[in-house]
Amino acid sequence: MGRDIKFYCTGCGKSYRIDLLRHRCGACNEPLEVEEIKQGKIREGSAINQSMLERYADFFPFLDIEQNNSLGEGFTPIVESKKLAKDLCIQKLYFKNESQNPTWSFKDRGTAAGVAHALQLGYKRIGTASTGNMATSVAAYGAKANLETFIFVSKGIAVEKLKPIAIYHPHLIKVEGDYGNLYFESLRIGEENEIYFINSDVPLRVEGSKTVAFEICEQLNFRMPDYVIVPTSAGGNIRGIEKGFREFFTCGLIDEIPKILCAQASGCSPIFNAYHKRAEKISRVENPNTIAHAIENPYPPSGNRVLKMIRENKGTAVAVSDEEIIKAQAMLAEEGIFGQPASAVPLAAAKKLREENYIKADETVVCVVTGSGLKYTAALERHQLDVKECNLEELSSFIKDRF
Amino acid sequence: MGRDIKFYCTGCGKSYRIDLLRHRCGACNEPLEVEEIKQGKIREGSAINQSMLERYADFFPFLDIEQNNSLGEGFTPIVESKKLAKDLCIQKLYFKNESQNPTWSFKDRGTAAGVAHALQLGYKRIGTASTGNMATSVAAYGAKANLETFIFVSKGIAVEKLKPIAIYHPHLIKVEGDYGNLYFESLRIGEENEIYFINSDVPLRVEGSKTVAFEICEQLNFRMPDYVIVPTSAGGNIRGIEKGFREFFTCGLIDEIPKILCAQASGCSPIFNAYHKRAEKISRVENPNTIAHAIENPYPPSGNRVLKMIRENKGTAVAVSDEEIIKAQAMLAEEGIFGQPASAVPLAAAKKLREENYIKADETVVCVVTGSGLKYTAALERHQLDVKECNLEELSSFIKDRF
Repeated sequence: MGRDIKFYCTGCGKSYRIDLLRHRCGACNEPLEVEEIKQGKIREGSAINQSMLERYADFFPFLDIEQNNSLGEGFTPIVESKKLAKDLCIQKLYFKNESQNPTWSFKDRGTAAGVAHALQLGYKRIGTASTGNMATSVAAYGAKANLETFIFVSKGIAVEKLKPIAIYHPHLIKVEGDYGNLYFESLRIGEENEIYFINSDVPLRVEGSKTVAFEICEQLNFRMPDYVIVPTSAGGNIRGIEKGFREFFTCGLIDEIPKILCAQASGCSPIFNAYHKRAEKISRVENPNTIAHAIENPYPPSGNRVLKMIRENKGTAVAVSDEEIIKAQAMLAEEGIFGQPASAVPLAAAKKLREENYIKADETVVCVVTGSGLKYTAALERHQLDVKECNLEELSSFIKDRF
Repeated sequence: MGRDIKFYCTGCGKSYRIDLLRHRCGACNEPLEVEEIKQGKIREGSAINQSMLERYADFFPFLDIEQNNSLGEGFTPIVESKKLAKDLCIQKLYFKNESQNPTWSFKDRGTAAGVAHALQLGYKRIGTASTGNMATSVAAYGAKANLETFIFVSKGIAVEKLKPIAIYHPHLIKVEGDYGNLYFESLRIGEENEIYFINSDVPLRVEGSKTVAFEICEQLNFRMPDYVIVPTSAGGNIRGIEKGFREFFTCGLIDEIPKILCAQASGCSPIFNAYHKRAEKISRVENPNTIAHAIENPYPPSGNRVLKMIRENKGTAVAVSDEEIIKAQAMLAEEGIFGQPASAVPLAAAKKLREENYIKADETVVCVVTGSGLKYTAALERHQLDVKECNLEELSSFIKDRF
């Protein structure tokens, strides 16, 4: 049955076959999306022996799950923070910790789905254009599935970012030129050269991100939070999370859909800007500048779709400063979670929206922690870190006297 | 019932109460161990809603699991590599990927168990002496449980190692003096100052590591591999893994116990040295030197116990050079797993033992990947990494012509 499912354009609604490689609409260039799954249930099984795509196979009827080259993506923990809920004066606060994925970010969910689709369509080559988490993820899954893997990065990439991608041995190519154009050019090159590009917001990546919502539903025993806050760059992840809740609702697994909040850094907030200007389309941000590099996309390819989506969902968009981000990163660590700066954006956003009384005292919030703090240790320079010194001989009295 | 369980000394057999803080034997100074659990079964449940300590609660009858401040440790994937099994010419090869824990190493299992025990005994302060994975883990769990947390590191620690510990805001103290003595001195200071030190091989850390074995049993559907290879430093992890298999065997959950192989780096291999000299006790390694810093312990506090254990288990000890480690790290990455150098030691060991025909062509091996490659990116300097360059305008023809 799943083979009858179609892609449709999120802009003009035009439909496309799912068994051909196509990521954006030929008519209006907006991103395509897999049509909503209307029937499905969770395939119960011990998650210790089950892959994420197997558990939610009903929601991927267009994939041969057995083809999946899983590295063990998904099934990440949700961690409740009573301490921070109290500090923020809200009912409950949870962190969905995506840093426990195989390459330590949420990207692995979408990559797993994308690779499964590529294999199914007979592709032997995959690729992506990225400088960060996505490049690492695609390189790792390409290696696992024994596929020829192309990673396009921008010329100016720092060597410390390049090496953790190169270790997986992809064809790694530094490209000189406009990074925004590279996104579209890579899709075109992929179509011409039989390379399945799993870029940031391609339909299968969005499908992979649905599982974040599915797991939140299960982990909260199907009692929905009021808000789910997602750091937003290209827009693929937030679209997937919203679609996941929507499909569980349509299938009768949940009674309501939480409000999805789009959280950006003030230094690069094209969706936030358009939302608050009541614009219908996003505009490119000139000179983006934020410590949250993982979400520093000046012209998100799913920006228009996200804008429409948060309006329909009755969520909102919020932007926080680098100072607020660094403060939130420290707060998060005091709960035992070290996220990269972009991952602290939802907590900073929750704090801000609570202060503005948008979020109320009796409400519940889930923050999506998208990736590991080890991805960008340079951010640690911005923290005040206290270190004491002592001789071994004096250590005993040092501890006794001071503490 | 669990409260009648005792610690016993792994050296002289003397028994101790489990409800008092004690890590080593007062008579012979060898490490204590929780007595073997003789009755237990797996508490089935969806791992998506279950913590590791809950699932295996029967094997922790001395812990109040509800006190557990879980960050979502354990339930890490096991990844099969058909490609590398073929290259090595063995039946099956698996990687147990511990880098998907909350602080990206296996240490979190033992820390979770240690913190639960500390809380149960009424402690409000915990600590550890470490420069690496364990310091990060104890700092994170201490933050989560809202405990005062003491981390002792050696004076010469590099600042890039210090900051990912400091971000969790423990009392972080650089100590000048012999690092080996710091281990024992910290335990003593802990007893005097009501600080529960969760050092590398304390009994509860060993208990936490049992779950690695439990999960391997479940993930392989209770069909036992011939070998489990563990990178070994202080000795706590390998002891826990062996104890886990032993308890599942005693409880009738498995029919045989795999051989446990102790893998070390040639530049610091005190257990390997003693094993092959047929010595009864380990000797301190002078001038340890290996890229696998996470297992660079010149005088492992559980060394004698591990030596005895691998003899009883009929396993062996093996040591591999830095060159072999770097090569194995690259091989592992080509399977999509980026482990820190110490984590590549088991694969290097498997390769070596296969070449020596110790491991046979029809046998099955599990390698424990202990921590994320992001923990020590300096190792990437040792890899040949291939990067190409191109202009955006020429990218299309570059791809067409070259690939």
